[in-house]
Order: sequence, then C-alpha cells, then structure tokens
Amino acid sequence: MKLAVLPGDGIGPEIVAQAVKVLDVLRRDGMKIEMEEAPIGGVGYDVAGDPLPEATFKLAQESDAVLLGAVGDWKYDTLPRDVRPERGLLRIRKGLGLFANLRPALLYPELASASTLRPEIVSGLDLMIVRELTGDIYFGQPRGITTLESGEREGLNTMRYTESEVRRIGRVAFDIAMKRNKKVCSVDKANVLECTEMWRQVMIEVAKDYPEVELSHMYVDNAAMQLVRAPKQFDVVVTGNIFGDILSDEASMLTGSIGMLPSASLDANNKGMYEPSHGSAPDIAGKDVANPLATILSVAMMFKYSFNDEATYQRIDNAVKKVIAAGKRTADIWTEGCTKVSCSGMGDAVVAAM
Amino acid sequence: MKLAVLPGDGIGPEIVAQAVKVLDVLRRDGMKIEMEEAPIGGVGYDVAGDPLPEATFKLAQESDAVLLGAVGDWKYDTLPRDVRPERGLLRIRKGLGLFANLRPALLYPELASASTLRPEIVSGLDLMIVRELTGDIYFGQPRGITTLESGEREGLNTMRYTESEVRRIGRVAFDIAMKRNKKVCSVDKANVLECTEMWRQVMIEVAKDYPEVELSHMYVDNAAMQLVRAPKQFDVVVTGNIFGDILSDEASMLTGSIGMLPSASLDANNKGMYEPSHGSAPDIAGKDVANPLATILSVAMMFKYSFNDEATYQRIDNAVKKVIAAGKRTADIWTEGCTKVSCSGMGDAVVAAM
Ligand SMILES: CC(C)[C@H](C(=O)O)[C@@H](O)C(=O)O
Ligand SMILES: CC(C)[C@H](C(=O)O)[C@@H](O)C(=O)O
Repeated sequence: MKLAVLPGDGIGPEIVAQAVKVLDVLRRDGMKIEMEEAPIGGVGYDVAGDPLPEATFKLAQESDAVLLGAVGDWKYDTLPRDVRPERGLLRIRKGLGLFANLRPALLYPELASASTLRPEIVSGLDLMIVRELTGDIYFGQPRGITTLESGEREGLNTMRYTESEVRRIGRVAFDIAMKRNKKVCSVDKANVLECTEMWRQVMIEVAKDYPEVELSHMYVDNAAMQLVRAPKQFDVVVTGNIFGDILSDEASMLTGSIGMLPSASLDANNKGMYEPSHGSAPDIAGKDVANPLATILSVAMMFKYSFNDEATYQRIDNAVKKVIAAGKRTADIWTEGCTKVSCSGMGDAVVAAM
Repeated sequence: MKLAVLPGDGIGPEIVAQAVKVLDVLRRDGMKIEMEEAPIGGVGYDVAGDPLPEATFKLAQESDAVLLGAVGDWKYDTLPRDVRPERGLLRIRKGLGLFANLRPALLYPELASASTLRPEIVSGLDLMIVRELTGDIYFGQPRGITTLESGEREGLNTMRYTESEVRRIGRVAFDIAMKRNKKVCSVDKANVLECTEMWRQVMIEVAKDYPEVELSHMYVDNAAMQLVRAPKQFDVVVTGNIFGDILSDEASMLTGSIGMLPSASLDANNKGMYEPSHGSAPDIAGKDVANPLATILSVAMMFKYSFNDEATYQRIDNAVKKVIAAGKRTADIWTEGCTKVSCSGMGDAVVAAM
C-alpha cells in the first residue's frame, strides 16, 4: 500500500514523525507500506506558492491513503485568502471527493479528570460524529463580498445540498451505526432552513434500508445543548458540513483530551485522509511536547476504514491503551502521579507497546 | 407603558401568568402599566389560522414592549411550514425589526450543582451572548427546495449580511460591554465564509469607536469548544443569527438551569420583546410544574433595556435571588434539602419577596 504523508504546519511534522514510527514497526513486521512525503498548507505555500501544490495533490490522488498532520500558522494570516493554509485543506478534501468525515469522541477512563464535565456525565463516552465534508455552505456558489448600489458591502454564502449528497452521507452514518449501537441522530435546522428540511426528508428515506437502526432528528441548537447536558445519549450523529464543524469540535472538547482524538475523511471507495482532530498548535511547535496519539490513532483508523484490516487497527489501538494505562502522559493530559513524556517519547512508548 | 402579552403555546400561559403577577405588584405600587393579551404561535393558528395573527402583530407594534411565553407544540408539527408556530416567532422578530437578541448565561451560586460541568469551571459564570436576529441565513433569499434538471431535489439557503447590519449589532455588543467587563469576542468563520470575513472587518471598524473595549475574534468551531473548556474567559460574545442560535443554547446549558435564563430582543430604539430562553415544553404544559423564573427575569430585563429603569430591574432581580437563597425550587432545579414549589407557588414566592 502506498501512503502520502503530509506533515503540514506547526506541530504537524513532529506528530507525523511519531505516526511514521508506528508504520515502520508494521513494515518491519512484513507489511508492504510505501510512504512519500509532500508539503501542504503554509509549508506548501512556502515551497511552491500554493497551499496544495500540484505535485502534492497528484501524490495524494495516486496513493491508497493520506496521512495529514495539520495546517495553519499565524504567520500566514495576512496572506490573501486563496493561498492561506486552510484553502489547501479544503481543496484536497474536495479534490479527492472525501465527503465523509468521521470524528469519534471517546473518553479514555484514565483521562476522565481532563474533562471539564462531571465524571458521571462523560465516563464511558463513545460517540461518532459523521460530518458531510464536501458540500454545504463551505463550497456553495454564489459566494463573495460585493458592493451594493447603496455603496455598502454585502457578504454572501450559499448553503446547498442535493438529495444524492445527503443520501450518500446518510448511508455512511447508518453503515457505521450497524457496527455500533444502531442509533443515528440526524442534526438539522429543518424548522428554519429549507436546505436542511430536504436533508431530513432524505434521512428518513435512507433509514428505510436500515430497519434495525433507530433514527432520530434534532435541531442543531438543541444538539449543542444536549451534548453538554447528556452526551451519552448519542451513538452516531450525522450532520452537514458547517453544523458538523461546530458540533464535532464541541463533542471532542467534552473529553477534555482532544490530543487523543483521530479523524478520517473518506471518499466513495473508502480511500481516505487521516488526521488528528486538533489543529497545528503553532505555539508549541518544534518543542517536542505535542501529543502524537491522535495522529497515531488516525493511522489505526486508516487500517480499519481504508484497508479493512481490523487486526492492525486493534494492535495500534491496544498499544495506545497500554501506554495510557501505564501512566505515560504528554503535557496536555498530564496529571499528578503520572509520568510526563515528550512527543517523541510518547511515540517510542507506543512502538515499545506494539 | 403599554405591554403586549403573548402567552403562546405549551407552558407559555402558566409562566406568563406568574410574570403578570409581578407586573401587578408594580401596578399596585403605582406604576402605570397597561397590558393586553393576544394569541401567537400554535394558539394563533388555532384561533385565526395564522401563527402571527394580524391583530397580534398590530398590538405588538403599538405597544412599548412585548412579553412572550413560548411557541411550539408537537401537535402542530404536521402543519405546512408557513403556518407552523415558529414562523410566527420569526415574523414578529423581523416585522418589529428586533435585530439584537441578548441572551445572558449566568450561574446562580446556589444552583451550581445543576450544571453538568465541574463547579470550578462554571462558578461565577456571567456571559452575555449578543445574537443578530433579523438577518443571516434565517431570512436570506434565494431559498427553497427545487428540482434540478437531473430530476433530483436540491435544498438551498442564503447567508447574507450587509455592512450596516453588522455595524448596528456590533454597536449593541460594544455598548453592553462598556457596562460590563469591556471585552467583546466576535465569533465568525472568516477562514471559510466570505460573509463572515466581511463581518470581521466591520467589527474591527466598530471597535475603533470603543477604545476601552478589547475586541477578539474566534472561529465558531473554536468558540463551541472554548465554551466547554473555559466559559469564564468570555464577557460579551457577538455573532450572527445561526451561530448565535447554536452558541447561545450551548452557553445556557452550561449553567444547567436554563429555566432561569431570560432574553431580550431589541429594535433600534430599544423597544423589545422579552421571553425566556427555554422553549414551550409541551410535555409538562398545564401541570403547574414549569419554572417561571426565566419569564419573570425577562420582565426585569424589560425594565432595564426598554424602560431604562434600573431600580425596577434590581427589585425583581433581587426578589428572584432571595427566593433562590431561601431554597425554593421548581422541579427542574430541585435538589435534596430544598423546598419544591409549583409554577404558581414560585410566582407567589417572588411576589412575596418583592
Ligand atoms: C481549518 C478549517 C477550514 C477546517 C474546517 O472548517 O473544516 C477545520 O475547522 C476542521 O474542522 O477541519
Ligand atoms: C424556534 C426557532 C425558530 C428559534 C430560532 O432558531 O431562532 C429558537 O431556536 C430560538 O433560538 O429562539
């Protein structure tokens, strides 16, 4: 299998380096893994004037899966919008057709104290947010800032979904629910937005093919509340791009250890891009203190979703669990009584546990 | 002063009845308050086939302020979109030009245990969400569900803001911050949506007129996280209609006692509509168990914002604090050791404390 490795900005290179150590173990054990690195985000702009250089996109297209670190750094904030790091991310998602973003929010029992929520509210939390990633107001036309006749400016974006876009993300959510607790909660704002009224109708249709799965609907404002009030009521949550952006970040913060949370972005054939849920954290970049576990767990997800290799997924996942159980902690999740380790130290610990 | 009293659906009538008791006390003490009731929401549909009957809107227009209970009930869920209870709410907001929605999230020390967050994270929480209420994707044209040439349906909504719309809500937020801790956090998604890029630019301009106020910017996904991680970092949060819908509900749930939270929706002359932040709760309607304090505190806000009468605001607010301190609790906020009271019992207790 061929992997495109895109370290990106900020802490991207150091966390990806630890994930590569994990891949090296698998290689040593006989797996045929080819890896090639390429620049993306601010680094892409630095070397090629483009946050998604042509060659990087080509490499990603030709690979079986993509491992991404993170993009973005304050130093690029003044660049024109079209060449800012985020644009590289949005373009690779769209260009590869990665419409299904899976973001688990899972609380490791040993890390319960990292959550700002009371332990009884979050202990055992294990939910999966399925976010549509290539449609909605992120990509809808028309868009832009124009000057009206009155002389004042107007900003405009368009929320748009077609039935087939909703249906395919719906199927992903229901398929995942079948392997979990068979509950899908579809989040919309159908009482106000026609676009999401259609979303709800299509979800109801999709549900007919999954008689074992229980479908519920929730307005996005209520979902934002319920995640705080009783997050364990959810199994799989499926929603559009912008609501998913907001709710998946809220959900991951419930665990208090966002440094532990991986994500997958899949196309129609389960080719995918895998990246930590957290950002590029330029403030701690280069200091070897970042938490590489979300990136390592993203590699685990890669085996599960793109390579259908549950055994390797389990092997990596168990190694991470062992390291956590042994009390090893990077700074972000460290508490009294645990052993503080560096980013590379954590990578080594996972390798040892494998 | 003339008030339009719109009880609405579900628990609306019973909570509004308690707020009216409070107004009656002020009347007995010599204040000239005229009140007139009218139907809105599902009740409006029942009596006049319209969730905002002509006569109700006229009354609201002619009044100095509007007191609203809540709208919505499952039994109206199958009605055509145009006559559903929510439409009445959206139309009265737009029709009266109530562009500034103020939603405080405040934690009463005695109710800290109602929060799902750890006490140290939320104790002393006191933030104000200023949500734009008559623009954005709620009202933007074009909108609707159409059939494409391919035969499949497409749902569409439009996010739209003009400079002047952003400027006026910005000024409201900064004015409020001047009377609080002089911090405004403007929430947008400027890295993806041009509409909110313009929003950010205008906020920066508005800030120039308020040199004492510190302006910061936050992406909406990060704001959803930060509200869970460290909500006390915020003083005033200003944002658009849809992001404000989501974040204000999330913020109110942080307190765990949404039955305590009032809201105000103001026009350019501080004429306003006042209503509890919570909904119509049809499941407990008519049982005399709802918490009327959010509605009573909405009356307090009415005196502060529409009638510039800080003394009456304080009088009502203090009465509520006294009742809470005395251990009186409706079912939603009751804990061991407190005295459980009914909806009307709570209204009577506030009246007695005044
Ligand atoms: C960086 C940004 C464009 C991106 C998004 O909004 O999708 C990020 O917030 C995410 O969730 O991956
Ligand atoms: C009922 C609904 C239309 C309304 C809104 O979305 O504005 C409600 O959620 C609110 O926040 O007042």
